[in-house]
Formats: sequence, C-alpha cells, structure tokens
Amino acid sequence: MSDIHADGAVPGFGIDAIHEAARRLAGHVVRTPLLNSPMLDDLVGARVLVKAECLQLTGSFKVRGALNALLALDEDARRAGIVAYSAGNHGQGVAAAARLAGCPAVIVMPRTAPRIKVDNCRWWGAETVLYDPGTEDREEVARKILEERGMTLIPPFDDPRVMAGQGTVGLEIAEQAREMGLAPDTVLVNCSGGGLASGVITALDDAFPGLANHIVEPAGFDKMARSLATGRVCANPHPPDGLMDALSGPAAGARPLAVLRHYDVTGLTATDEEALAAMDTAHRLLKIVLEPGAAASLAALLSGKVDVRGEVVALVASGGNVDPAVFRRALAD
Amino acid sequence: MSDIHADGAVPGFGIDAIHEAARRLAGHVVRTPLLNSPMLDDLVGARVLVKAECLQLTGSFKVRGALNALLALDEDARRAGIVAYSAGNHGQGVAAAARLAGCPAVIVMPRTAPRIKVDNCRWWGAETVLYDPGTEDREEVARKILEERGMTLIPPFDDPRVMAGQGTVGLEIAEQAREMGLAPDTVLVNCSGGGLASGVITALDDAFPGLANHIVEPAGFDKMARSLATGRVCANPHPPDGLMDALSGPAAGARPLAVLRHYDVTGLTATDEEALAAMDTAHRLLKIVLEPGAAASLAALLSGKVDVRGEVVALVASGGNVDPAVFRRALAD
Repeated sequence: MSDIHADGAVPGFGIDAIHEAARRLAGHVVRTPLLNSPMLDDLVGARVLVKAECLQLTGSFKVRGALNALLALDEDARRAGIVAYSAGNHGQGVAAAARLAGCPAVIVMPRTAPRIKVDNCRWWGAETVLYDPGTEDREEVARKILEERGMTLIPPFDDPRVMAGQGTVGLEIAEQAREMGLAPDTVLVNCSGGGLASGVITALDDAFPGLANHIVEPAGFDKMARSLATGRVCANPHPPDGLMDALSGPAAGARPLAVLRHYDVTGLTATDEEALAAMDTAHRLLKIVLEPGAAASLAALLSGKVDVRGEVVALVASGGNVDPAVFRRALAD
Repeated sequence: MSDIHADGAVPGFGIDAIHEAARRLAGHVVRTPLLNSPMLDDLVGARVLVKAECLQLTGSFKVRGALNALLALDEDARRAGIVAYSAGNHGQGVAAAARLAGCPAVIVMPRTAPRIKVDNCRWWGAETVLYDPGTEDREEVARKILEERGMTLIPPFDDPRVMAGQGTVGLEIAEQAREMGLAPDTVLVNCSGGGLASGVITALDDAFPGLANHIVEPAGFDKMARSLATGRVCANPHPPDGLMDALSGPAAGARPLAVLRHYDVTGLTATDEEALAAMDTAHRLLKIVLEPGAAASLAALLSGKVDVRGEVVALVASGGNVDPAVFRRALAD
C-alpha cells in the first residue's frame, strides 16, 4: 500500500489514534466485561482473562472499528452515508454504526447470504443490496453505489481508523486487568485480515511492554502468520471450507501486517474440532456464547499450543454469532 | 418464625444490611454486567436491562448470600466452617464462599445427585456427604455434622444475611441503570424460596420508590404468590416435575414472605416451554447461557404476561448451570 511508510509506520494509526477512538466510541458501544473463571484457570494452569466481545452490540467487536471510521468522517460525508461489502459480522457492525450515528448505510451481500444476516442488517436500518456472486463482482457493485451516492466505503480491516477502533478492545483489557490488580504476560488474538490483532497488540504492548503476543488463525489458513514470515501480504491457499467463517477472509491486510511486523508476534492455529471444544468450555465455565472463529484463541490455549503455565493470559472472545446447528454440535454431553 | 416482628420486620435484614453486605462482598464476587440488546428491546417494546448473574462465580447469584452469611460469623465459627444441604446452585455457592473465605465447608447431597454437581462442590474444596434419600433424612444428616463439628448451617433463603447478600444484585442494578442514565419502572425477579426476590425488591424499591415489582415462578408451582395472597407460608402442591429445578424448592421462606408483604408484588408464572424459548432468545440476542429457572423472568416478559410497553424493565438472569441436553432442546433452528 502506497501510504505505508518505508519504516512500516501506518499513517493515521497508532496508540494515540486508539485513544482518540476510545473517546469517540465512549457511550456508544459496550464496555464488555473481562471475564475470569477459577475453573478455567485451573484447566489451563494460568490466570485467564477473557474479553467478552460476544456481549458487544451486534454480537462482535466489529461495530467499534466501523463507528470510529464513520465518526472520523466530515459532516457531509457522514450525511451521505457508508457502504460495506460483507455478509458477516463487519456488515452488521457497519449497519449498527450507521444507526448509532444517524446516517444511511448500504450493505452489499451475495444473494446466497443467510436470510438472518440480511434481516439483521435491515433491522439496524441499513439498505441491503444483493448481488449474484456467479455473474457480478461485489467490488464493482459497491463502486457504483459509492460513485452514484457519494457514500464512503468502510473496509473490514485494512484501514487505520478501523484498526484504531478495534484497538479499543485492547485499551479496555489493559484498564480492566489493572482494576483486577493484574498485568497480562501473554495475549492471544483471533486473526483474519488483522484489524483486531493489530489494534489490540498495539494497545496492550503500550500498556504492558514486552508482553508475549500471539495471533490465532484457522489451521491451514494462517495467511497472517505466513505474511509475517515472508514480509509480504499472503493469501489463503484455497477458499475456506471450515466452521471459522469469521477468520476466513481471503488475504491478510497490508496495514495490519505493517503494524504487526513491529512486534514479536507468534502465529498459532486451531482446528474446527478444537474450536468446537472451546465453545463448549466457554458455555460450561464462562456461560457465554462463542462462534467458532471467536473461540480460536481459547481453543489454542486449551489445546496447549502455547506454554502459559503460571502466567496471566488475556484473550479476545471476539463474537457470538453462530448458527444453532453448529452450537448444538459444540455441546458435549 | 418466632423472630419476625408483629409488624413483619425481619431482624437483621433491610436496606442497611444490604449495603453492609455489598461492602463485605466487594472484591470477592463479580460485579456482573447489566446487559441490554436493542433487538430484545424491539421484541419486548421496552428497554430491557438484564442482570447477568449467570456470569457470577459458580454460575449463579447464590455465592453472594452464602459469602455474606459466612463473613458475618465470628472468627471461631468461621474457622469451624459451614454446611449446606443442596444439590443445586446453593451448594456450589456455599462451597465457593468457603473457599473465598478460607474456611471448611460440607455439602450434604443425595446419593442420586448428578456427578457434575458433586464434582463442582469438591472442586471448590468442599467436603461432600452423600446420603440415601430413600432411608435417610437430609436435615438429620446435616444436624449431626453441625453438632459434631461445631459448624454453622447456611440456609438457602430463609436467613436475613443470605437475603441481604442476594440483595446486592439489586444495589448493582440500581447503580448500573443510573450509570446508563436510566431508572427502571418495573422489575421482574425469579422466585423460589424468595431470598433473591426479597433482597432485590428491597434494594430497588429503595433506589426507585414506586417501582412495579414482579416475582416469576414456574406455572403450577407459584408457592410464593399463593403465600402472598394468603399471608401464610405455602408449599407447592406436589414435587416438581419440570425443567426449572432452581425454582422448585418445596415451600416459600417465612422471612422472604414477611419482607415481600411490605411491597406491592405481582406474581407471574412461566411454563417450561416459555423458559426454553427465553433461553433461546438469550442465546441469540444476549449471547449468554441461562438455565431454565433463570430464564423465567425473561420468559414472562417475552410471553407478554405483563404490560411494559415503553418502560424501562430490569430483570435478573439468575444462573446458567444447565445440562447440555436441555440447552440443545432450547435452541430453535
């Protein structure tokens, strides 16, 4: 990306931008709880702090980045409204952000998107534009809307204001851990494009320098870990075929990658079966609902993919939008 | 009960005792979040504030009352330890309270109790004493332990300190609603013996005088509503046969009844099917796990058993300890 500096700095993003986002979002989004379960601690052998973003408006962290990007627009652009192409949590986050700010939104989705996702975007007041994924290109569909209506595209992750908005999750973890008298030694963040991971790691490293940083991706789809290893934006080898749809975007984000390269970040992965087991554990011990992709970090922890014995570990339980049939599968007897 | 005054006052219980309990419990129990979902508000036609006690230590509010009663004991009594007879949430609450205070606990349970409930009490460090419900009387079993070991019985609800501890749920609702700039018009509380209901209604009526108070019981097992109507402690007509085991104690508590008679309290009921539907709604819109009895208030609200249009409604989602098979049944497609 042309605006990324030679030293890897991303214009418009950094700890100051995250603090600015926190001021913008205050009173609009939920300060989700940082949960702890003594039984979970016992199971993992560490003090585990779970940032429950499933309890956020729209059931995922996505509304934070969308609303921060929207509130950063000037008055005219805001009035014209915002566009997203997403059949997932980002679409709902953009729809909710527009409602919170009182501006129009258009969500571009494939005709094949589940009815509930279309209905949810409409419930928040957004217009939905459905395209035929066999014959139409979603970027082309969105481009027309942007041009004709003077609207602004809100990217799902590769945008400094979106990244800063997601970073408020990390600021809150730092505040809440301190309120509990704790300082995390390790953080695990679910990662797809990297908007959440870059924001959270920037915020937590500022609060607790030297923290051990981990991103968690679906096994076989570790595009960000490969991007970090090669220094270039990598794509997944083939279209996703598993349950972790929230972590299944095609490629890592250039700006998130540029940010994450500043830190010592270890890439971990979780399988669908491990994610289902983690959803069951979250159900039994934390009493929260997680979707498979949101359970990846807890899955990596419970499967022993990182040695955290005796540490304080923070992780982001990033969303809870899951089909009942998948959730039923997760529940062990 | 002989210590209840002629005017219905319960010695040791009242708003001051609830504030004292809050000071005792601070830092030991979780200040659970007061959740709100715009979609749920839309469904009900009111602003609905859900106190998520399923996110409390042990997965229910019970640890509050148990720990308050325990911390009120003198040093010697505390060191000797506490006893409960309960195979349910109260047993686990007492076990956890003892661990938090560093004292011994004995939980008396029928041999027929589910393995997981026995294991959970032991996990918290309590000793479990299993009796044969066919040939032994649990009160007799407990009495022997109390006498031989000088331990103190922690009753599940008919005790001023237990009631005051549960009342801290109401204090927190009042504080959290005010932080949101809201004043509840109506409260719904799940009710069995009445410990939670008497505490929460006392605290909320103090904060918001004139609030409309509702208790919610399983349909056909509305012992407290009948006790309020007759002015005498009533029992359920026959042993419970439904899913709401947390609300299925045999009789209303004398002290909770004496307290609730001071207020204008409306009795509502919910069926098992309504509770299952409310568990599904909580799963979809709030992303929390509720057990059937804990979903009774939300069930009454969703089934339109009380007219709350345009109001601010507070309710207590009192616990999340549910068998996976029951939870699977609750999930609609």
